[in-house]
Formats: sequence, structure tokens, C-alpha cells
Amino acid sequence: MKKILKNNSNALLDKFNSSIMFDKRLYKEDIKGSIAHCNMLHKQKIITKDELEQITKGLKQILQEINEGKFEFKLSDEDIHMAIESRLTDIIGKSAKKMHTSRSRNDQVATDMALYLKKQNKKIAKKLKKLIGVFYEQAINSTDAILPGFTHLQHAQPITFSFFLLAYMNMFKRDYDRFKSNIKRNNTCPLGSGALAGVPYDIDRELSASLLDFKAPSANALDSVSNRDFSLDALYAISTLMMHISKLSEELIIYSSFEFDFIKMSNDYCTTSSIMPQKINPDVAELLRGKSGRVYGNLISLLTTLKGLPLAYNKDMQEDKEGVFDSIDTANISLDILIELIKTMKINKKQMRQACEVGHLSATDGADYLVSNEGFSFRDAYYAIKSLTAYANTINKDVSKLNIKEVRKSCEELKDVKEDILDAFKIEQCVAKRNSYGGTSPKQCTIALEEFKKWLKEQK
Amino acid sequence: MKKILKNNSNALLDKFNSSIMFDKRLYKEDIKGSIAHCNMLHKQKIITKDELEQITKGLKQILQEINEGKFEFKLSDEDIHMAIESRLTDIIGKSAKKMHTSRSRNDQVATDMALYLKKQNKKIAKKLKKLIGVFYEQAINSTDAILPGFTHLQHAQPITFSFFLLAYMNMFKRDYDRFKSNIKRNNTCPLGSGALAGVPYDIDRELSASLLDFKAPSANALDSVSNRDFSLDALYAISTLMMHISKLSEELIIYSSFEFDFIKMSNDYCTTSSIMPQKINPDVAELLRGKSGRVYGNLISLLTTLKGLPLAYNKDMQEDKEGVFDSIDTANISLDILIELIKTMKINKKQMRQACEVGHLSATDGADYLVSNEGFSFRDAYYAIKSLTAYANTINKDVSKLNIKEVRKSCEELKDVKEDILDAFKIEQCVAKRNSYGGTSPKQCTIALEEFKKWLKEQK
Amino acid sequence: MKKILKNNSNALLDKFNSSIMFDKRLYKEDIKGSIAHCNMLHKQKIITKDELEQITKGLKQILQEINEGKFEFKLSDEDIHMAIESRLTDIIGKSAKKMHTSRSRNDQVATDMALYLKKQNKKIAKKLKKLIGVFYEQAINSTDAILPGFTHLQHAQPITFSFFLLAYMNMFKRDYDRFKSNIKRNNTCPLGSGALAGVPYDIDRELSASLLDFKAPSANALDSVSNRDFSLDALYAISTLMMHISKLSEELIIYSSFEFDFIKMSNDYCTTSSIMPQKINPDVAELLRGKSGRVYGNLISLLTTLKGLPLAYNKDMQEDKEGVFDSIDTANISLDILIELIKTMKINKKQMRQACEVGHLSATDGADYLVSNEGFSFRDAYYAIKSLTAYANTINKDVSKLNIKEVRKSCEELKDVKEDILDAFKIEQCVAKRNSYGGTSPKQCTIALEEFKKWLKEQK
Amino acid sequence: MKKILKNNSNALLDKFNSSIMFDKRLYKEDIKGSIAHCNMLHKQKIITKDELEQITKGLKQILQEINEGKFEFKLSDEDIHMAIESRLTDIIGKSAKKMHTSRSRNDQVATDMALYLKKQNKKIAKKLKKLIGVFYEQAINSTDAILPGFTHLQHAQPITFSFFLLAYMNMFKRDYDRFKSNIKRNNTCPLGSGALAGVPYDIDRELSASLLDFKAPSANALDSVSNRDFSLDALYAISTLMMHISKLSEELIIYSSFEFDFIKMSNDYCTTSSIMPQKINPDVAELLRGKSGRVYGNLISLLTTLKGLPLAYNKDMQEDKEGVFDSIDTANISLDILIELIKTMKINKKQMRQACEVGHLSATDGADYLVSNEGFSFRDAYYAIKSLTAYANTINKDVSKLNIKEVRKSCEELKDVKEDILDAFKIEQCVAKRNSYGGTSPKQCTIALEEFKKWLKEQK
Repeated sequence: MKKILKNNSNALLDKFNSSIMFDKRLYKEDIKGSIAHCNMLHKQKIITKDELEQITKGLKQILQEINEGKFEFKLSDEDIHMAIESRLTDIIGKSAKKMHTSRSRNDQVATDMALYLKKQNKKIAKKLKKLIGVFYEQAINSTDAILPGFTHLQHAQPITFSFFLLAYMNMFKRDYDRFKSNIKRNNTCPLGSGALAGVPYDIDRELSASLLDFKAPSANALDSVSNRDFSLDALYAISTLMMHISKLSEELIIYSSFEFDFIKMSNDYCTTSSIMPQKINPDVAELLRGKSGRVYGNLISLLTTLKGLPLAYNKDMQEDKEGVFDSIDTANISLDILIELIKTMKINKKQMRQACEVGHLSATDGADYLVSNEGFSFRDAYYAIKSLTAYANTINKDVSKLNIKEVRKSCEELKDVKEDILDAFKIEQCVAKRNSYGGTSPKQCTIALEEFKKWLKEQK
Repeated sequence: MKKILKNNSNALLDKFNSSIMFDKRLYKEDIKGSIAHCNMLHKQKIITKDELEQITKGLKQILQEINEGKFEFKLSDEDIHMAIESRLTDIIGKSAKKMHTSRSRNDQVATDMALYLKKQNKKIAKKLKKLIGVFYEQAINSTDAILPGFTHLQHAQPITFSFFLLAYMNMFKRDYDRFKSNIKRNNTCPLGSGALAGVPYDIDRELSASLLDFKAPSANALDSVSNRDFSLDALYAISTLMMHISKLSEELIIYSSFEFDFIKMSNDYCTTSSIMPQKINPDVAELLRGKSGRVYGNLISLLTTLKGLPLAYNKDMQEDKEGVFDSIDTANISLDILIELIKTMKINKKQMRQACEVGHLSATDGADYLVSNEGFSFRDAYYAIKSLTAYANTINKDVSKLNIKEVRKSCEELKDVKEDILDAFKIEQCVAKRNSYGGTSPKQCTIALEEFKKWLKEQK
Repeated sequence: MKKILKNNSNALLDKFNSSIMFDKRLYKEDIKGSIAHCNMLHKQKIITKDELEQITKGLKQILQEINEGKFEFKLSDEDIHMAIESRLTDIIGKSAKKMHTSRSRNDQVATDMALYLKKQNKKIAKKLKKLIGVFYEQAINSTDAILPGFTHLQHAQPITFSFFLLAYMNMFKRDYDRFKSNIKRNNTCPLGSGALAGVPYDIDRELSASLLDFKAPSANALDSVSNRDFSLDALYAISTLMMHISKLSEELIIYSSFEFDFIKMSNDYCTTSSIMPQKINPDVAELLRGKSGRVYGNLISLLTTLKGLPLAYNKDMQEDKEGVFDSIDTANISLDILIELIKTMKINKKQMRQACEVGHLSATDGADYLVSNEGFSFRDAYYAIKSLTAYANTINKDVSKLNIKEVRKSCEELKDVKEDILDAFKIEQCVAKRNSYGGTSPKQCTIALEEFKKWLKEQK
Repeated sequence: MKKILKNNSNALLDKFNSSIMFDKRLYKEDIKGSIAHCNMLHKQKIITKDELEQITKGLKQILQEINEGKFEFKLSDEDIHMAIESRLTDIIGKSAKKMHTSRSRNDQVATDMALYLKKQNKKIAKKLKKLIGVFYEQAINSTDAILPGFTHLQHAQPITFSFFLLAYMNMFKRDYDRFKSNIKRNNTCPLGSGALAGVPYDIDRELSASLLDFKAPSANALDSVSNRDFSLDALYAISTLMMHISKLSEELIIYSSFEFDFIKMSNDYCTTSSIMPQKINPDVAELLRGKSGRVYGNLISLLTTLKGLPLAYNKDMQEDKEGVFDSIDTANISLDILIELIKTMKINKKQMRQACEVGHLSATDGADYLVSNEGFSFRDAYYAIKSLTAYANTINKDVSKLNIKEVRKSCEELKDVKEDILDAFKIEQCVAKRNSYGGTSPKQCTIALEEFKKWLKEQK
């Protein structure tokens, strides 16, 4: 029995109204849900053992047909539920109709989506764990690689590349937690909610829920058939993930410019120009950066569609799928390719280190020295070092390369400063001294990496 | 010569990087652009007559192959430009390469998109004109259909259904203007901008532009290869259009509820339930309402992707297409089905008129009467009528149905009011009296419809 | 020492650059953070006891000055941190500068925001709990109020009003969980991260974190000063909350229209018209519905601003506050007023019940009866009942009001049907029979309300 | 007469419901609209000359009071319309009420917003013209400044800085056109539409419209009181403008990094660090980049709020103002500061030119030479030059610096190449040769600047 029982069938309406061309992606969940539902119906004596067996066998055949690309999806079937039910009727005859007892398409599609998203949240979390592992491998080998840390894209203080990578590992760890908590929050099964009000059959919703590996049946039928929070939660977690990836991509692009030249992405993940023989372009990083747009759009789409919708099911809600599928696909392929990109990335330690001799990265440490050892107030020290850096600019040297004569000559306040100040300007010292918990010192990076190693082991 | 000259070809990169599976939609524009380009090259003596003829013939063959579904799109071709060039090489040999002289993919794809959007802006404008025509037909037949006008979804003042339809005709007219001004604003041709800096050939950009029906060549090559304003303009115009459609849809849904029962959409554009035999659902209107989400999302996607991108071409910009195509498709099919929905919609004049006897729609007119004829200040009149409506509620009557005894009994202030006040409460009078320009009176509606008739004739 | 040490002070730059006019809202967090920081510095022997005491006393005085509106905020102070530090210098002299030892404004502002959002997440969660309690009170009194359940805004099946309210209670419970998990996920303290790389002092970040009631110090300094995930998490949770509220508002508006007349919101939360004496408008519900726009906008704003930003602090990040404050304010006042709106709402049980006799709400149950008792297949039953409802329409009766003669007369298939079918059409029966877990039966509603009572008790 | 005539006044409702704290910004438009309205009422003999004079005088007094900060805005006045009417009553007594004859707050607020946006669209357009003028001044002085043109942030081909600036001039010219066409499209006056249905008075809407400098009265009252397209149009134009500014800002930030060092923004528009004495940060450019987020958010907010709203006025629409005001403010201050930033920016021609000797910018031109002068196919030439650049890398030279011996040694294919090839590699030649219309050659830049000079003169 079809939902669209139009008086006059109508190609335009079919095209506008049908969801089969995109919701066919849910076929595994739809079949899995139907099998669980029928097992429950049988246990409750609503269908016979024979009916259950026929239905199950038929559904498994359909699963195989779709897996093997032998299933014909027709626009007139409207959606994946009808397509499967209709094919099942071809195969096993009218027993097929029993499958839909005490169920409606409203709870069926909600169950399909919930199952799909549970699976995808898990899959993405797993890839995030893998990505963090790849970062770990790069980070363990770069605790000695020193580069300028930036604020405002200006040289600020020297940091290790390991420390830089750890920043992203922490972002991705929060993303991981977000996907994990999505699974936990959305762990109830809508099946058995009927069209909107529950069903007039003696069903066992606990059983259906447990067969589908949900924690419990959903608590209110009206809410269950209109709830799409689980889709929003996934769209949001993906938006945050892709935002983090866009930040990383920006840095990979900048760091692989001629001007920075800190890293080199593998040619396997770069492209060349059809016109300019010399060019190598970081296309992958650029696409990753650009894809934040699409996932943000999908989030705002669903939020907008759900805005102001009365209970319970409204056809607007059919718009809940394509954006979700698109964001899920984007997250999956983005993680796949980012894992490879990071794995194969080379760093240019020499160039990084050289860049540390530009921009007076250790100026703050000189000021700190004056405070601690020469009795300056921080304000006086700040201005003395400001004069020093100005002087250093005139002789085209970084403070880390000055000799004591130059330092003393730079301004009245420093004319008697002790030679020890030169140590304070040394880049390696600056890094080593930032040894507070979470700081950039090689020691702290090693501790942080140990923590990640442990964390990676603990995740299942 | 391919853009991706990866050292090691790589399925994952191909999948992530290739645009062919969606940009193939631009094949007509790509071929049209190439033919115009080659005509210009020939005129400038950059290619020979024979080369031009071979290329043109080959491209026309490819056009036909794609039209007939005989063209095989391969992921490894990366994009539509390479797919066509590569097939052209198969057909005509190395002359095919000449086509790309003094052109890069950067100006080529910008030209394709600009051509595509010009065509689509025109197409959508044309459908909007058709839609306004369909509204006109309904409106011309409903200047006498009186229903409650609402504010806050509460009965406010009586209006004609014609007047209601005219409101939407004005919205769609503004949408029409928006698409038209998009065409005008984005009427320059990027072709000949090269990769980013112009080309070192003596080309005639005026000629290419005019062959492609653009007003002029674009003014700056660097801007031309990174400009996607024309895409944003289309996405925005579609967002506003779909917002208007969402408002209309909401009203169609509410007006066809059991409670309102003002209109009836054709069963050809409604659906039924698989479970509830009695139901008829306004799916089309609901989907139309819901689709605002998707087009808003596409707008925000592209705005986000373009945010902070340096000049000139960056691969992020490949993300400019799918959302645009999706919004264009949405606008087209939404207009197609809305035209049919409005054309076949029936109105329930009786029910509309009955609803006017609920909620004291003519109360304001009673107050106006007291001011004009009985010397009340508006404030006093307002409170007298407030008392009257409160009294009318107690006897369960609308003010338009009261007799003079009831009016006079309602409160001290009205105890001597003249019987003429009853006329002021008459619904038809209320409507007729709102005869200011743009008002709801049948006379003004007729004038407004005349203006639209003229407007419709004037549009080409 | 100010951050802006412009050569030439400049009113335009001050206006553009300063955040004090909005970040002053963080003064409590800023002072609390500074006191904790100084306690830690003292414990680590970085500042003296005397300095700690002076600073603490000074800060408490400033707190009081701001609380009492006696503090002058100057644009030239740029931000709340400088405003407080500068005032502290006025009060206690140069010891004030010690407060900023081993801290930068980058970790300071991150700490302020994290503290602020932890507080606000808790506050909103508490209000949500209160809201659910108010719903509970209405729901406990309406298990016997029967109204039509809608899908597609068309009558579908009868439900209880209690069941309707429970749907929203479940949504708000998920919102509650979202705010709670935000607190948990974002429970690390950025203080001590310095400008970007950690600090060269022997500080105790565990102590600062614990003094500020965070679970732990944040793990990576570079991430800590650029992380705004906690802001996004709050903006998202508020978006979902306001989406749910927009759905509820839409229903309150529709249900209080003349046509539906199911509920009446208190005049204390409605407004009247300046022109139309008879009108009462559901302004509160409308504003609540409309405010989804603003909070969605704030979410997309911050996502956009963060897109593609390199590490670590960039001034773009100053844009992280106003939208967050606006969404937080919106959530707070919306919950406050919604609590009152629901508390004072009256329901019109009679009108609800009457509406159940329109639209053949019990049609499905008739079909079920034929299947269970008369051996029909569901398809045959569906069509028989379809004929019956068509017939009922012609005599202008709802199926629930038909007598057996009318039923038998409606179509050939029903000519011998037993009189028992009339029971199946009874509205109360339909409701009672939907007794599956989560269903609309009064029994299930009572169970669900018991569960909520328990849940409410368990939440702290 | 107030709109909110609550039974029990209520602080929470006042706070939630009132718009006065933000719509007070419309006081000039409100007063201007009232004066025009009253002049029309007088001409139509609806109010007396004396009443008109009193009202006008009173309104002018109020205008002055507000201008001078002497007007007290009270939350209980709910909105700017009531605040002014109430104050007018204080001043002139009950004649004040006449002002509201044949008007409602619905058409009044629509008129205020339309007036406000017309003014702001003009103001922003004027600033854009000024900005383009400032770019012009920089561009006229930099036709000889050669820097690498980038695609994918990789060196692509050499361009002039003038050409770079012209790209942005073209973007801002399109923005200018967008604001101008907003004025044109939204040039009808809602005044006289009444609450929703027109008014029962003999008014002259043509006159009101012309007094307020609108082209015509709006055509349909129902549409007029619910139309906010003019607000959306402004929000969209601002979004596109800020997107362009975000691109420019990104480039200014990158170009002023130590690594690029192409430009130097004036210290008057940079800031320093409180910790790091050596730092100069491009805060202005960063904030400009970040502000795209806020204006995108405001656009999506209003689109969302308007989605699915039935006609006519609904309180949700009160949410139309704050976001618009915020985007208008953002556009205004951003343009003000950007004008100064560009005006005071210095460019580092030497560094730009040096950067052109990295990355083989002239490689394409070498390939072109081989095709034109040595009979190579482009493919063969492409690969020969690829080998040459690879060789050049090994000896750490740019192709533009090679001598003929090095070229010939690089690969078999070039072993006999003529010395003339060296000319092709010269950077200045590469630039001069890209002389197609819109190209980067100094000649084309001069032509383009002439066109802009003319355009600037033509704009009023």
C-alpha cells in the first residue's frame, strides 16, 4: 500500500515528492530494522514463525540484490521503504504486508536515520582516532624542530613543531568526544511509535530496541516521529571538525608557500598546472579548507527546515537527509585524505629554525631577564628591549644573534648589562624554559605525547 | 595536458579532487565557450581556418554524444574541460590542443559558470512570470471572495482573496526583478583572462564576449578568475524567492486544515497516508516550505567558502558548484510545481465568508463610525467598542450580527447610538471602504490586477 | 601596559578595535580568575603575601564598584582586562602589575569565557529543569483532555494533551543533556597557557584550575589560546533549544487561533492592537518563534569567523563574544517567559474534544477492527473504510458519530458488518488502545509522567 | 493609545516584548514620516492647518530633544512610535492623536525601515566610491611595482601591484552597484497601507510617497506591512561587501608577514603586544576579516525569521532590526577604517621584485618562446621547461637568472636553444607581454585606471 495514492499519477509530483533517489542509501538500516521488528512481532505472537522466516529470507535476498547492484530503484516507489516492501511482495507475496503491522513509515524512517547516524558517528570517531595516531607519529619526531609560533600571523615566540601538532591533536580529541557523546545521547529506538500516537498492539519495544543495539525504546511517540536532534548533533559535530580542519589546512597552505617553506606535502597529494610547468599546488589542503562551507550550510539547512514545524511528521522533514548524507560523506573522505596527507608530509627543520632568527622571537625573554636579574620593572624592561630591537633592525640582525657590545650600545639603559643576557636571547633556551604544563618545551611535549599514547590505547 | 600530473596516480585523490561528476552539467556552456573562443582565435590569425573547422566539428560531435548519453565521463578526466578536450583529441588529433591557446582553465570555468547562470536567471525569471500569470487568473476570479485578513494569526480585518493573492504577486514581482538585475549586473565575459594575469597573445576579448552574448569583456583578469559574485547573486535571489514560497506554503497548509478549510488543493498535488484511510496531506506545500532550508544553506556555504580567500584561483573555489546547481534545480522544480498547485487550487468562498463572522473583524470600523458620526475621540470610541465586543462575546455573536438593541445595551456610552452604526459593522462595507491605493476594496484589486496585466504584457 | 601602543592615538581605531563596551560583561569572571591566579602565584612564591593581599583587596573593591555602577568604562582602556588592571594600579600602585606575571591576555580572555560559559550552561540547564516542571504540572492535569493529533497539520489520530506536552518535555530533556554535556566537555582551564607557548615560570596550573572549579588545566597552550569550541557548543545547544521552542510556539499560535481555539494564553502574556479593539495577539509566542533566527545567526557567525584561522590568537577572535552574549541572553529570557506562559496557559478541553469529531480520526481503528474481527486483509479494510469516510462526508458526519445503519449502507463490503465496529470508532477507545510504551493512552502518559517526576528529583 | 494594554503590567513581558531600546535609532525616520503623513492628511482635509502646525512643531521639538540627548526612552513606551506619540501628547495635548489617523504601526514601522535603509544604502555606496578613490591613488603609483601573482598561494606569474589593486576596485564597484540597485528596487512607500488592508480614508499616497522621496506608493497593503525584502537586500549586499573585504584583509595580513614583507600597514592602524616588545600586529585587517562572520549571521537570521511566516504582520518581525542595524554599523565603520588603512599603507617594491626571482614565475613564457620560436609543440615545450626548472632548482637559481650555458645544459631538448630565450624569462617582459584587455601590463593597468577615473567622476 503506497503512501501516494494520487488520483492521477503525475511525473512532476513523483519527481518533486519522491525521496528514493537519495534515501536508498538507507537500505541496510531499513532491512535491519524490519528484521528486528518482525522478530519482535513473532515473539509477541503477532506474526507466525513461518511469516517471520519468509520475510527474513526475502529481505536478505533484497539486501544481496542491492549490494550487488541488481536492484532497480523506481521513482514511482517513492522511498526506500516502499521499494523494499514492494520487492518483498514480489518475492514472498502478501505475507510481505505483515511486516508493516504496528509500524508506520514515520517511526520506520526515524529508526533508519537513527541507526545510520549511530553507525556513522562510530565510523568517524574511529577515523579521528586514526588521524590522531598519524599526528602522534609526526609529533614524536619533531620535538626538536623549532619554528616561530605565530599570533596575528606575526612571529611571536619560538615553539616546537611537535607542540604545534599537539594543538591539533587536542582539537581532534574534542571532536572525537563530540561524536562519542552523540552516540550516547541519541541512543533510543523510535520503532513502535507508529504514525504519531503509539500502536494498538501488544508489542515489546524493549526487545526491538535491544535487537537494534539501542539502549532503550524512545519515551514518547509524538516526539519520536518528529525528532531529528540526532541529525543536527551529527551536522554540528561535523561542522566543528571541518572548522578545525580548515584551520589546519590554512596553515599547511601558508607553511608550504615559497615564502614560508616550512613543510612539504607529498606530490601524491598535490597537483600541477596545465599552463605553468613549475607549479605544485596544495589542492587537497585547499579543498579541505573550502569544505567547511558545505557542512556549515548543511547544518543551517536542517535548523531552518525544522524551525517552526508543528508536531508530528510534516513532509518538510523529508529534507532532512541529503544534507546529512553530504556532511557524512564529506567528513569521511576528508578524514581519509587528511590521514594520508599528514602521514606523507615532510617538514623542513632547517628552514623553520632559520625563520626563528627573524622577528626577535626571544625579545620577551630578554625583558624577563632584565626583571629577574637586573632589577628592572617589567615596564622599564619592555621599553629597553623595544629600543634594543629597534637598534637590531638598523644593523639588520635578530636579537638572538647580537653580541654583548651591540646590546650595550643599543640604549642607555642597557649600557652596563651583564653578558648573561645573551643566553636569554637564545632560541633553544626560550623553548626549553616554557616548561609549564601544556607548554612548548620538549619535556612537556614528551609528557603530552605520552598522555596521548595512553589515550589512544584506551579508546575502543 | 592534464592539470593533475601526480607522480603516483591515486584513487582517493581522484575521488576527492575531481569535479567531473558534478561539473559535467556545464558541458553545453563549455562547448559554446570553446567555439566562441576558437572563432576569435581564428579571426586574430592565431589558429587557421582548418583548425577552427576541425575543432568546431569535433565539439559539435561531442555535444551530440553527451546529449544522447553516449559520452563516458571518467573520474580520471578530473573535470568537464579535460573530458571534452581529451575526447576532442581522440576525434581530431593534436589540433585539439590549439583550442586551449591563450586560455586557462581558470577563465574557462568562470566563463562556463557565468554563461550557465545567465541562462538560469532567465529561465527562472520566465517561470516567475508564468507563476504571476497563474496567480492573476485566480485573483481575477476572487475579488468578491471575502475572508478574514490576519495579523498574528488572529482575525484582524476582512479582505478579499484577490487582495491576498496580489500580496504574493508583488513578492514574486520583486523576485523577478532580482533575477533580471542579476543578469544585468553579471554581464561581462571572463574569457581571455588567462590563468590570472591576462594572456600574451593579440586576442579580441570584445569579440569573444559578443559571440557569447555578454555585454563586454570583464575588466580585470585577476578579479575575473576569482569572482563568483554571479553565483552568490543567484543563490541570494533564490533564497528570497524560496522564503516567499515558504510563507505562501505555510498559508496554504493552514488554510487547508479542517479548522480553516478556506482552500482545497487538487488531489493531484496531495498525497494520502499508508495507514490512515481518511487522510489527504498537503505534501507539496510542505516540501516547498521545507526547501527554504536547503537554499539558505547553499547561500551560506558559498559565502563561507569564499571568506578570506586570497587571489586568484584557489581550489576551494571548486566548492562553488554543487550548491549552486542544487539551488537552481530547487528553484526550477519548485516553480514548476507551484504553478500547477495554484492553477488547480479551489477556494471555499462560503467558508471564508463565514469565518468573517467570528472575531469581530469590523470592530475598527465601528470605532471609526463613532469618531466620524458621533463625535467620539478615537480613544473613547476604542473603549466603547471594546465593551461592545466583550458584550457580544457573552451572547455569542459577532459584532457584524448584532441588532441595534444589543448594541445599545452593551455599554453606557452606546446607549443612544444611531442605528446607522450597524452598517459600519457590515463586512462587505468594511472591505469596500478600504479603498486607498493598494487597499483591499474590490475596486482597488481590479485596478491592481489591471496593472499586473499590463506588466505581464510588457515583460519579454 | 596597554596592548595598543599606537604611535598616534586615534578615535576611529579605538572605536573599531576596542571590546570593552561588550566584554565588560565578563568582569566577575575576570576578577575571579585574577584572584585565583594570584593565589597560585603566591603559593609558588612568585608574588609575596603582601602583594597577594593588596591585589585581592583591590580587586574586591573594583568588583564592588562595578556591581554598584560606579566604575567608569573608557573606550581607551580597550578591554575589560586593561580596565581592571588600570583601576587596580590607581588603587594599589605598581604591585598591580604583578598580577599579570606568567599570564597573557590570550589565556586570560579564554579563561574568562570558559568560566562565563560554564556558569551560563548551568543556569540554562536549571531553567530547563524548571520549564520541564511547569510542563509536568500541565500534563498531570490533562491526561483526560483529548484532541486531534496532527500530521501534515491534518487530523490524524486522537491523542491526549498530556501526551502532546510530554513530547516537548522530551525535547527539553535532550536540550538539558546537551547543556550538561557542554559543561563536562569544556571543563579544562586555559590559565597559565601564556601568550601561546606556556610560560617560563614555575607555576601550578592544577591549583589555578582547581581554584576556579575546573576539572584540570588545559593540555596544550597553543590550542588553549585559540580554542573557542566551548562557545560553539553553547551556541549550538541554544540553537537546538530555540528550534524546539519555535515548534512549540508555532503550535501555541495555531492552537490559539479562532479556528482552532484549543488553548488560551494568559492575557498577561498577550498584547492588544492600537487600532483593532477586539484583538488579542500572542506576541510572546511569536517572538519566541522568531528568535530562532537570531541564535542560528550567532552560531553561523562564529563558525564563519573561526573558519580558516591559523594558530594561535588572531584579532578576528574578538568577534567571538557579542553573538555568544546575545544567544545566552536570548536563551535565558526566552526560558523565563516560556515558563510563565506555560504556567498560566488554559486549555479548552471541550473544543479539543469536539475537534476530534471532525476528520474521521478513528478511521484507522475501524480498519484494524475489520482486520482483527472480520477477516479483511488490511488493504481491503483500508479501502472499505475509505468508502465509509467518503459516505460519511456526504451526510456530514464523522465516523465516530455514525450509527450501524449508516455504516452498513456506506459500501457493499460493509453491508453485513457487526455492530461492534461502532466501538472501534469511539475516540476514547482509540486513545486508550494506543497503549504501547511511549503511546498516547492515559495509562502510558501516567507512566511517562512518573518517570519524569523521578528524573526531576534526580537532577541537581 | 498603546499596543500593549496588558491586564497586569509585567516587567518581564516589557523587557521581552519592547523594542524601544533598539528601534529608537529610527527616530529621525519616524518623525520625518509623521510630518509627511500629516502634511498629506492636511492636504486631504483630514486634519486642520492648526493641527498640522502643532504636530509639526511638536515633532521638531522632539527631534531636537533626542538629538541633544535630552529625551528619556522608557521601556514601558514599548517602541519608538509610542515614545514619540506619547511625548507629543505631553507637548501639544490631544491633537497628537490625530497624527495616527489612517495609519497603523504596521505601515509606520515598514516606512521607517524603508527610509532608514534608503539612507544607509546611499551612505555606504558613497563610502565605497571613496574607497575606490583611495585604491585608485595607490594603484596609479604602482603600475611599475612587480610582485608574484599567486594561485593556490603559490607563485604563478608576475603581475603589477596596480593590477592587484584593480582586482579589488572591480569587486567594490560591483558592491557599489548592488547598493545602488537596492535603492532602486526598494523605492516604494508603505505609508497608507494601514494595519494590513488599506485605510477607509480619502488619502493621497502618491503625495506621502513623494514627500518622503520615494518613487511611488507600494502596490499592495498586505504585502507592504509584511515585506522586509529591503532589509534582506541590504544584509546581502553587506555580506558580499564584507566577503570581499575579508579576502583583501587576508592578503594584507599575509603580505605583511615577515616571510612575505610586501606591504607595511601604518602603525596608526596596527597594535602592539603587552608581552612581546617586538610585535606589531595587523589587528585592523584581522577584525575586518572576522567581521564577515557577523554579517553572514545577520543575513541568515532574518532569512530564518521570515521563513514560513503567514501574512500579514507577526511579532516575529520585530526581530528584523538589530541584525540590520549591526550589519549597517559594521559596513560603515569597516569602510571608514579600510579607507584609512589603504590610504596609509606603504608597499615594499624591492621585496616584491625580489620575490619574483623565486619560483620560476616566467617559466610559462619560456615554454611559449619554444613554441613560437623553436617549433616545439606546447607539450614538448612544457616538459623541456619542467626539466629546466628542475635543473635550476639544483643550482639554486630562478629561471629568470640563468645564463645561456645553464639553460642549454639543463636538458637534451634545450642544448641548442638560441640565446634569445633568456629574454623570455625576464620578469619585466612577462608583465609587459600580458597586454590583452584586462591584463597586467602597465599599459592595460593605465587604461583600466583611466576608466575608473571616468567612472568616479560620473557617480553622483
